[in-house]
Amino acid sequence: MSLGRRAAAEAVGTAFLLAAVVGSGIMGERLSGGSVAMALLANSSATGAALVALILTLGAAMNPLVTISDAFRQAIAWRDVPLLVAAQIGGAFVGVAAANAMFELPVVSFSQHVRAGSGQLLSEIIATFGLLLVVARAREPAFAVGGYIAAAYWFTASTSFANPAVTVARSMTDTFAGIRPADVGGFVAAQIVGASAAIAFGAWIGGKR
Amino acid sequence: MSLGRRAAAEAVGTAFLLAAVVGSGIMGERLSGGSVAMALLANSSATGAALVALILTLGAAMNPLVTISDAFRQAIAWRDVPLLVAAQIGGAFVGVAAANAMFELPVVSFSQHVRAGSGQLLSEIIATFGLLLVVARAREPAFAVGGYIAAAYWFTASTSFANPAVTVARSMTDTFAGIRPADVGGFVAAQIVGASAAIAFGAWIGGKR
Amino acid sequence: MSLGRRAAAEAVGTAFLLAAVVGSGIMGERLSGGSVAMALLANSSATGAALVALILTLGAAMNPLVTISDAFRQAIAWRDVPLLVAAQIGGAFVGVAAANAMFELPVVSFSQHVRAGSGQLLSEIIATFGLLLVVARAREPAFAVGGYIAAAYWFTASTSFANPAVTVARSMTDTFAGIRPADVGGFVAAQIVGASAAIAFGAWIGGKR
Amino acid sequence: MSLGRRAAAEAVGTAFLLAAVVGSGIMGERLSGGSVAMALLANSSATGAALVALILTLGAAMNPLVTISDAFRQAIAWRDVPLLVAAQIGGAFVGVAAANAMFELPVVSFSQHVRAGSGQLLSEIIATFGLLLVVARAREPAFAVGGYIAAAYWFTASTSFANPAVTVARSMTDTFAGIRPADVGGFVAAQIVGASAAIAFGAWIGGKR
Repeated sequence: MSLGRRAAAEAVGTAFLLAAVVGSGIMGERLSGGSVAMALLANSSATGAALVALILTLGAAMNPLVTISDAFRQAIAWRDVPLLVAAQIGGAFVGVAAANAMFELPVVSFSQHVRAGSGQLLSEIIATFGLLLVVARAREPAFAVGGYIAAAYWFTASTSFANPAVTVARSMTDTFAGIRPADVGGFVAAQIVGASAAIAFGAWIGGKR
Repeated sequence: MSLGRRAAAEAVGTAFLLAAVVGSGIMGERLSGGSVAMALLANSSATGAALVALILTLGAAMNPLVTISDAFRQAIAWRDVPLLVAAQIGGAFVGVAAANAMFELPVVSFSQHVRAGSGQLLSEIIATFGLLLVVARAREPAFAVGGYIAAAYWFTASTSFANPAVTVARSMTDTFAGIRPADVGGFVAAQIVGASAAIAFGAWIGGKR
Repeated sequence: MSLGRRAAAEAVGTAFLLAAVVGSGIMGERLSGGSVAMALLANSSATGAALVALILTLGAAMNPLVTISDAFRQAIAWRDVPLLVAAQIGGAFVGVAAANAMFELPVVSFSQHVRAGSGQLLSEIIATFGLLLVVARAREPAFAVGGYIAAAYWFTASTSFANPAVTVARSMTDTFAGIRPADVGGFVAAQIVGASAAIAFGAWIGGKR
Repeated sequence: MSLGRRAAAEAVGTAFLLAAVVGSGIMGERLSGGSVAMALLANSSATGAALVALILTLGAAMNPLVTISDAFRQAIAWRDVPLLVAAQIGGAFVGVAAANAMFELPVVSFSQHVRAGSGQLLSEIIATFGLLLVVARAREPAFAVGGYIAAAYWFTASTSFANPAVTVARSMTDTFAGIRPADVGGFVAAQIVGASAAIAFGAWIGGKR
C-alpha cells in the first residue's frame, strides 16, 4: 500500500480503537449501576474484540511505539514514521470526539480521572513491554494483541494504556476511560521505558516465531 | 453454489442471526434481575459468538448493505442482489418469530422501545461504516465481524444495528432487542449513509488485505 | 486412527464436555449469590471454551446425532456408529459423576430441574438443527461449534442441550445444569426432529464450505 | 532457538502468566464489591486471554509438567529440562512479585487461602490430565490451552492450577489467587498423578492431530 493509504489506515483504525475504548467505557458505566467490575468487563472485552477486528481489517499499528519499534526492526522505513504517528494521534482525537458525540456528551471535556503513583507507572512499564513483545513476535497478531489487551486491562493496576496516542486522546473525555491531563506525561514516560526494554529484549531473542 | 442455495443460506443465516439477537436479549433480560449491563453482555457476547459460527458455516452476508457493497466490489452480480436481499429480510422475520415462540411470547408484537435522537443516528452511521469496512477488507471475516459486532454493541449508543434487515425485523418483538417501528426509518437512513461512505472509502483504500 | 482409539477419544472428550457443563454450572451457581444470569454466563462461556479445546485436541463428535449425521454424509462407516455412540454415552456419565465428585456432591443424584413445555421443545428442535448444520459445513469447526453453543445457551429457551448423550447424563446431577429424568424423552425426541431436518437440508445445500 | 533464548522465553512467559493470574485476581476482587463470581470471571477470562497471547508470542510451555511431558514425547531433549524448569519457576516468582508491586501490595506475602480436601485434589488430577492432553495433541495450541484453562477455572473445584510452578508461586501472594503454603504439596502431588496418566494415555492414543 502507498504511504497515504497506510496513513489513512492508521487514522481510521486508531479512531475506531479510541471510539471502542471510550464508548464502551461510557456505556459500561451507564448500564452497570455502580458495579465497576461490570463496567471494566464491558470495557475490556469490547476493546479486545475491537482490536481483533481492526487488526484483521486494517493491519494497522495504531500505536506510535509500535510504529517506532517496527522501524527499529526494519519492518518499515524510518522516513515513514512521522506521518504514520501523526495519523495515529489525529485519528485518536477524532475517535474520542466521536465517542463523546455518540453518547451526546460535549465533544471534548478534559478528564478529571486521577491516574498516578508508583503502581500505575510500574503497570505501564510492564504493560508496554508485554505489548511490544507480542506485536514483534506473535503469530496471528490480531488475536494475540486482542487477547493481550483484554487481559492487561485486568492484570495491571493502570488498566494498560500502553500507547501514547491512546493516552493523550483519553485525556479529552471526562468519562470512565479518561485520564487527567496532568497524569499523561508520567504514563507516556513509563510507556517509553517499557517499549525500550522490549525493543532491546526483542532484538536479542529474535523476531517472528 | 447455485443462486437458490445461496439465497437459502442467506435466509437460514439471517434467521439464526435474528433468533440469536432477540432470543439472547429475552433470556438476558429475564435472568439479569434488572442489571441492564448484564443483559447487554449476554446479548452482545451471544450475538458475536453466533456470527462467528454462522459465517464459518454459511459464508452468508446476512445484511442487505453488505450484499449491495459486494455488488459494488463486483464480488457478486447485481442481478443476484434482489433475491439475496429478499431472502435476508424473509429470514430475519422468521428468526424474530422463532425467538418469540421459543420464549412463549406472541409470535409478533410491535416494539415500544424508543431509539431516536442525534446520538443514535450518528452511532448507526459510524457502526455501519465500520462494519462494511470490516466485511470488505478483513482476513478471517468470521472472527472480524463477530468481534466487531460484539464490541460495537458497547461502543455505540445505539448498540449497533448496522443492518436494515435486522432493523426492520427487530421492530416485530416487544422485548430487550426491539425497536419502535417509527424509529426504523431513521436507523435505516443512517445505515445507508454509513455504508455509502464505507463503499467510497473502501474503493479508494483497496480490497482484501 | 483405529476404531478403538476413536472410541477412546469420544469417551474422554464427552466426559470432559459433561464435566465442563455440570461443573461450571455448580461453580457458577455457588459463587453468583443468586444471579442466574451470572451463573449462566459462567456456564455458557466455560462450555464454549471447553468445546474449542476439546475439538482442537480430540476431533471428537461427542454427540450421537453428530455421529449419525456423519454416517449419513459417509464421513464415517455405519458399522462404527454403535461403538462410538456407546463411548459417548459412557463418557457422558463418567463426566457427570466426576463433576459431582469434584464438588463433593453425591456422585449420582437425579435432577429435579423441570424442563418442559412447547417453548422448550421448539428450542431443542431449533438448537439441534443449527448445531448439526454447523458441524456438517463449518470451516474451523472447533471455533464454530464453541461459538454456536456459547450463543445458543442464551438464544434458546432450553439453553440448548442439542445432544442426547448430554441430555441423558445431565439427568444424573441435581444441580444447575440438571434435567428431570421425566423430561429427557421429550428433549431427545425434539433433538431427533431437529437433526433429521438438518441432515435433509444439509444434503440439499451441500457439504463443507 | 538456542537453549538460552528458550529459557528466557520460559522465564518471561511464566512471569507474565503469573502476573496475569495474580493481577487479575486482585483487580477482580477489588472491583467486584463482594461478587465472587464476577471476580472469578475477570480472573478466568484474563488468564485465558493472556495464555492465547503468550503462547502465540513465545511458544513457551510455562509449566514444568508440560516440559517433562515434551521430553517424554521426545519433542525436547531431557538434558534441557532442568534449565527450562528453573526458568519457569524463577519467572513465576518474578511475575507474582510484579503483580503484588503493581497493586502496591507487599512484594511477597504468604497466602492464607485454604485449598484442601478430596474434591480439590481430584480437581487437580482431572485438570492436569486434561491440560497435558490438550498440549500434547491440540491443533492451534494457543487457542486450545487458553480455552481449556478459561473453562477449567469454572468446571473444577480447585479453579485448575494444573502447574507446579504456578502453584508454588501463588503461595507468595495473600490475594484472591493465592494458596496457603501448606496446601502446595497436595496440589503438586495431584498434578503429578494427572500428568502421569495423561502421558501414558497420550502415548497410547498418539500425538498431534
